[in-house]
Amino acid sequence: MQLENKFREMINKMKAYVYVLQLAGWDSNTEAPRGSFRRRAEALGLLSRELFSLEVSQEYQDVVNGLFSKIDTLEDNLKREVKKAKKSLDKTINIPEEEFVEYQKLLQMSQQVWEDAKENDDYDSFKGNLEQIIEYNKKFALYYDPNKDPYDTLLDDFEEGMSTKEYDEFFSQLKNDLVPFVKEVLKVADNRYDEFINNSFDPKKQEEFCDYLIDVMKFDRTRGLMKKSVHPFTWNTSPEDVRFTTRYLENYVFSSIFAAIHELGHATYEQQISTDFDTTLLNGGTSMGIHESQSRFYENTIGRSLEFWETHFDKFKELFPKQTKGLTPEDMYKAVNKAEASLIRVEADELTYAIHIMLRYDIERKLMSGETSVDELPQLWNASMVEYLGIRPNSNSDGVLQDVHWSGGMIGYFPTYALGSAYSAQIYYTMLKELDLFKLIKENQIEKINDWLKQKIHKFGSSKTPKEIILEVTGEEFNAKYYIKYLKEKYTKLYL
Amino acid sequence: MQLENKFREMINKMKAYVYVLQLAGWDSNTEAPRGSFRRRAEALGLLSRELFSLEVSQEYQDVVNGLFSKIDTLEDNLKREVKKAKKSLDKTINIPEEEFVEYQKLLQMSQQVWEDAKENDDYDSFKGNLEQIIEYNKKFALYYDPNKDPYDTLLDDFEEGMSTKEYDEFFSQLKNDLVPFVKEVLKVADNRYDEFINNSFDPKKQEEFCDYLIDVMKFDRTRGLMKKSVHPFTWNTSPEDVRFTTRYLENYVFSSIFAAIHELGHATYEQQISTDFDTTLLNGGTSMGIHESQSRFYENTIGRSLEFWETHFDKFKELFPKQTKGLTPEDMYKAVNKAEASLIRVEADELTYAIHIMLRYDIERKLMSGETSVDELPQLWNASMVEYLGIRPNSNSDGVLQDVHWSGGMIGYFPTYALGSAYSAQIYYTMLKELDLFKLIKENQIEKINDWLKQKIHKFGSSKTPKEIILEVTGEEFNAKYYIKYLKEKYTKLYL
Repeated sequence: MQLENKFREMINKMKAYVYVLQLAGWDSNTEAPRGSFRRRAEALGLLSRELFSLEVSQEYQDVVNGLFSKIDTLEDNLKREVKKAKKSLDKTINIPEEEFVEYQKLLQMSQQVWEDAKENDDYDSFKGNLEQIIEYNKKFALYYDPNKDPYDTLLDDFEEGMSTKEYDEFFSQLKNDLVPFVKEVLKVADNRYDEFINNSFDPKKQEEFCDYLIDVMKFDRTRGLMKKSVHPFTWNTSPEDVRFTTRYLENYVFSSIFAAIHELGHATYEQQISTDFDTTLLNGGTSMGIHESQSRFYENTIGRSLEFWETHFDKFKELFPKQTKGLTPEDMYKAVNKAEASLIRVEADELTYAIHIMLRYDIERKLMSGETSVDELPQLWNASMVEYLGIRPNSNSDGVLQDVHWSGGMIGYFPTYALGSAYSAQIYYTMLKELDLFKLIKENQIEKINDWLKQKIHKFGSSKTPKEIILEVTGEEFNAKYYIKYLKEKYTKLYL
Repeated sequence: MQLENKFREMINKMKAYVYVLQLAGWDSNTEAPRGSFRRRAEALGLLSRELFSLEVSQEYQDVVNGLFSKIDTLEDNLKREVKKAKKSLDKTINIPEEEFVEYQKLLQMSQQVWEDAKENDDYDSFKGNLEQIIEYNKKFALYYDPNKDPYDTLLDDFEEGMSTKEYDEFFSQLKNDLVPFVKEVLKVADNRYDEFINNSFDPKKQEEFCDYLIDVMKFDRTRGLMKKSVHPFTWNTSPEDVRFTTRYLENYVFSSIFAAIHELGHATYEQQISTDFDTTLLNGGTSMGIHESQSRFYENTIGRSLEFWETHFDKFKELFPKQTKGLTPEDMYKAVNKAEASLIRVEADELTYAIHIMLRYDIERKLMSGETSVDELPQLWNASMVEYLGIRPNSNSDGVLQDVHWSGGMIGYFPTYALGSAYSAQIYYTMLKELDLFKLIKENQIEKINDWLKQKIHKFGSSKTPKEIILEVTGEEFNAKYYIKYLKEKYTKLYL
């Protein structure tokens, strides 16, 4: 009991540091003036070091190891919490401090090197950094578990319980069943709505529409807010403070709308977690994949449905009478679901998105196993693009250099994006058995959908693993067939 | 040297905590959702305690006392810094911890008690808290210096070097020379522009005008920003991050304009301080009074001048063509300088403002000396209002309960407001000898005024005392005659 109190006390102290560091992050990403960053870096650097020294302190190690030694006697939530703490502690303290510091420096440098390389289409200037990042990741993974494939260790970092075994199977199903279907659709997909899609839409009015969507999705404004930023994201410190951003591109109105709905999915998940977990390590969504399943569900299944636009197209027309002249909800539905082969992942539509991820997983896997080297990446990337989507990047900036993840050391992150969409589809087919989903969407009763997700998924925070969530909600283990089924149904109806 | 390094290291650590606590304050006052405050209070409470334990740690005491013991050997800036640290340390550690905690609780309670009392016009429910607050302030002041009038100790807290001696003289000059003049003006001041002043002005357009003013005042947008909040304020962590707010009242457009210009005065002061002081205790403006002298100068001397509106009324008319129909810059100049006897300090005009402060000083002085008791305050307040301004509050809410200061324990703060205006006038007459001030305003060359103030006042941060600043800038000690002269000149021209 004394040990548990000490554990709780230390966790809460660390959480206080995390709180202010997160707050500074929110500020930096939404409004902080450019000039502020120098002093900010000094202050935050100092507090980060304070936090780190708490996290690796002998006192904390003793408490965590003490609790871990009698793990079987702890009640369920505390058991899970101590396991998480132990895992995270082991990952940190097994790395020699010197190497950790070197790696942090490498990441900081690599960010700038990658930005320059992308800007100048100069892959060669970046590949040395990438190679070192991969070597560090391998090494650190082996410190943690010398008997495990390092890539499996990394994959588990981003999605608990997932390894190459599951992902290999997942992506091979996509390759075999989805890719041929995608090719078929892309043959008939057309450009009917391109003029409408890329018309000019006043950003102020876009903002008004996104503000309207906050209420459509029944997001609680007393415990959250929307703002704008360059890259949309969701931010939260507790279910009582969940904020998200979108962005307004004058010539691509869908960007603000679907970023807002996507982030509202993440944000609703966070708002609906039980506040009982606030003072524990079980707060927040349980994994990247489950989180993405919620955002994709809101964005694609709800936001890109015909029923959604049957109800909300009037409001959109009211704000943009000229641009929408003569268009019906059905036109909007088709326009927002346009499928096409494109080079850039973040701009990809719902159908082709997973293909972009499949390609990245394949490359990461080969890099980690040594089957390929950084020298060969551009060729590998471009050949895969041709093979799966029939298009070839004109430059490495639009190819292998397009994403920030690798320069940030995030190896093993990408597959969770596709996994999230696939989880979403599996959850969707369960929901259909219990809710009249599209009727609720059409009748603007999203709160009933929110509540279903709250009771089945959201309220548990991180107290259940992703695998437990999927099994308990859908009655079976994760299976990619639902994802393929979902996409085929939707796009057959739309295009074939 | 080792002691100095240790001092610098500890100061910077404390500054890192102050930084994030300030950032959380900015967030709370501008956008944080209501629901966020519970968790926030927990996190910030914890970090505040961390900071406090650094501030009173034996290690820090040893460093400060060590440096203080050889104060005469230190170079000037370090000498001043160590004196400040020593004073602040002595003020804190001389208070028994138990009493400090009790007082903090009292203040927290009093905030709510005062709010309720003000809302319900129920002074009696608040007077017990006020009495206790005053007793604690007396006691704490005597802990610090048993041989000094406690009110003098408090006055010095808010304005270094000021005591009842100086303030008594200052306010008696106002009573003798200014009050009769004010009464004369109020007899002839009229309501010609009331309809215009209280017309409806779209808050979005008001915001556009305030945004325009940022550039008029040559505020550096790369190191600051403007936002809105319920009560306008300026916030800064370094000269490279200075933010301010204004508020938009649909039926009182002058509120947003003059709050913005006022805060731009504070904000420009902070932006122009040398960054050399960033890592020291000499960062930030040197005192409440000097700070207020800058904000009042920008607001009243620049912003309420005829020349200002000769240049910027066109822009205002462009945004509000209907409301300004037939009005000239001269009309605007007269409207923004309307003088009248009013009950509420924060809404008072430039002429009558000091009278409101004079009244508060008189009451604080008598409360601290025991010459009056909390029981007698409402009568004393109302009688003074009749005596000086010829009006009587209908309620204590519009009288003795109107300000937040006393419930927040800020005894000795009020006089700095009037002092700031008086400093401003004295600086103004010096500036007139060196700059063609109104020509610069008319020709929209505010950067030259900014630069004069930077070289004379701003760049020094807190490295000079307020008394040093006034003496060095104007060539003489503070003298209230300039303030009276300034007001008489301006209002004679306007009204007599």
